[in-house]
Amino acid sequence: MTTDQIFLKMTFDRWNALLKNFDTALNGFTDEQLQQEIAPGKNRGIYLLGHLVAVHDDMLRLLDMGDKLYPELQDAFLAKPDKAVSDIPTAATLREYWKKQNEVLAEKFNSVEPGGWLQKHTAVTAEDFIKEPHRNKLNIIITRTSHLAYHLGQFILIK
Amino acid sequence: MTTDQIFLKMTFDRWNALLKNFDTALNGFTDEQLQQEIAPGKNRGIYLLGHLVAVHDDMLRLLDMGDKLYPELQDAFLAKPDKAVSDIPTAATLREYWKKQNEVLAEKFNSVEPGGWLQKHTAVTAEDFIKEPHRNKLNIIITRTSHLAYHLGQFILIK
Repeated sequence: MTTDQIFLKMTFDRWNALLKNFDTALNGFTDEQLQQEIAPGKNRGIYLLGHLVAVHDDMLRLLDMGDKLYPELQDAFLAKPDKAVSDIPTAATLREYWKKQNEVLAEKFNSVEPGGWLQKHTAVTAEDFIKEPHRNKLNIIITRTSHLAYHLGQFILIK
Repeated sequence: MTTDQIFLKMTFDRWNALLKNFDTALNGFTDEQLQQEIAPGKNRGIYLLGHLVAVHDDMLRLLDMGDKLYPELQDAFLAKPDKAVSDIPTAATLREYWKKQNEVLAEKFNSVEPGGWLQKHTAVTAEDFIKEPHRNKLNIIITRTSHLAYHLGQFILIK
């Protein structure tokens, strides 16, 4: 393994492990449980699920991998806080989105050549990227991994 | 910047950002608030604080950087769940430990030569490391970063 391959493996091992952990937690909850708040007055499980799908969907744009799968989630799960929008997809629908999205992301990520991960993401200009080469596509994976871990820690509080 | 330097920067940027976020949350809570549970029947804030200090302390051993600073935290904050041990340090003491530890870790991490991060950590054998070169010191930082994010997501639920 080259050094680059080792770095990529470490990064994607973490991303995949956390997706799996979230998936396990999700499968352990009923749709009714997802309606519960993680703590009194805090986000509901269903909001965290929709929020993660919305955030991961936006990775497609940042990674220049095409359009969002579920742009309709933007308003209720990204722009606004929980309970601000009453007309949201059902838990069953969001479970399907989550599953399908993970398949699509895995396929797209697997098709990237190793060197491609060090190219700039779409939210940085070519000019800035010369000075800040860490603002690359892999950094999108790294930052979304800790975002996922943060919300997983909350999600498992559902009873 | 070399590719290795870029990978190291991305990894430590995340670690440092999450430490800073936890620090900001910690400074925003009173000692009394740290006695609260993050959700009914779940861990108290003070337990999460002690747990993080204990886990980060163990990084010293895994990274071959010397002895733990606070081995006495092992029992109450790692081996056992919250409230199993009644005689734990005060919130004020744990705040000091957290602060001091971050200084010590930063100093030790800064003294590592870039190539040193790809060497094996102490919990993997030389034989296994040949087959699994991703079980290196940097991977300790990567996995503890998502561990920190996970508990930060819980910690900020304190009211």
